[in-house]
Amino acid sequence: MDCKRSVGVVLFHEFELLDVFGPLEMHGLLPKHFEIHLIAENRGQVQSAQGSKSVAEKAFTDEDQYNILLVPGGRGTRSQVKNSVLLDWLKRQSTSAEYVTSVCTGSVLLARAGLLDNIRATTNKMAFEWVSAQGPSVIWEKQARWVEDGKFFTSSGVSAGMDMLLALIAKLYGQKIAEQVATWAAYEWHQHSTWDPFAKLHGLVH
Amino acid sequence: MDCKRSVGVVLFHEFELLDVFGPLEMHGLLPKHFEIHLIAENRGQVQSAQGSKSVAEKAFTDEDQYNILLVPGGRGTRSQVKNSVLLDWLKRQSTSAEYVTSVCTGSVLLARAGLLDNIRATTNKMAFEWVSAQGPSVIWEKQARWVEDGKFFTSSGVSAGMDMLLALIAKLYGQKIAEQVATWAAYEWHQHSTWDPFAKLHGLVH
Repeated sequence: MDCKRSVGVVLFHEFELLDVFGPLEMHGLLPKHFEIHLIAENRGQVQSAQGSKSVAEKAFTDEDQYNILLVPGGRGTRSQVKNSVLLDWLKRQSTSAEYVTSVCTGSVLLARAGLLDNIRATTNKMAFEWVSAQGPSVIWEKQARWVEDGKFFTSSGVSAGMDMLLALIAKLYGQKIAEQVATWAAYEWHQHSTWDPFAKLHGLVH
Repeated sequence: MDCKRSVGVVLFHEFELLDVFGPLEMHGLLPKHFEIHLIAENRGQVQSAQGSKSVAEKAFTDEDQYNILLVPGGRGTRSQVKNSVLLDWLKRQSTSAEYVTSVCTGSVLLARAGLLDNIRATTNKMAFEWVSAQGPSVIWEKQARWVEDGKFFTSSGVSAGMDMLLALIAKLYGQKIAEQVATWAAYEWHQHSTWDPFAKLHGLVH
């Protein structure tokens, strides 16, 4: 099969750097399988929570459909939960996307778009209370590095996005290829979705 | 002390995403201690090896001096080893920088600039032969997640940059703060510089 999956990554003001570029490193190591696009409400430079800027070459109005959607977190989500343009775009994209993924507090945007109702999901354990209050009909899981439910893959905080993404690669292309990608990135992959010492550290479980 | 350390990150065509944004995530979590700058030969957009573009707001000709220098790897290093403008800039910066750090094959650029002669250093284990041939007077270490020698911190492949950076944060601001940063990023920090299963995997040690 000589077709690539398109990966659409949503950027917004004050997105978290590693939420975006950790997973994209893994996607990027398989250029025969994935093609990466950064998208924002408006085309152009978008500032991360850490201050550096990256470039969205696509805008929501392009209405390109992506096979895999990636929604990062970061303190920018605090205002994006009220951005109906972004939430509507997520809703439209998710209808036909093969997989919808989020990292850290990115799941709050999926929840606010109504996409996670009655779906199992997780988020950053440091922001668990705020995120879960935004999506009362979501089945929030406290102890999880990531959660897979149907087409939705939601991960825990920041670096958990890399572990989740490798799990998705394993699902799509096999365990061996995912292990190969982790090795190329010299990354020690946490392969078990329930590995989550941070849930206890932040007092969510005992 | 109310002064920040400036962190200067060199971008070049086809830099490796996680080499840059893994460490910057960690720096960025301590905004009271670090201020981040992306620099390139020319100001403007720079394309990563994975295709996405980030923005260098500073150029070499600005001649700002950075306290901490970060040199990423990626397949772009294959042509940058011949870029005397970049090598000369690294040389000038390194004279007064407090710390000079590299991730992955970034150390090949420090080596070619003559900065690592008689210094202990490491690099990506998949590119060890090529990198070490470029710096015959460097004391290359095969089994190391990262190597600290004087002002130089050089790390192994890609994700090793995060472990190295946390070690530098521990050195500058204490072990507790480094552990706090790792927890914020939900990152399992490899705290031992000799932890390196990848050296064996790639046949460098037995």
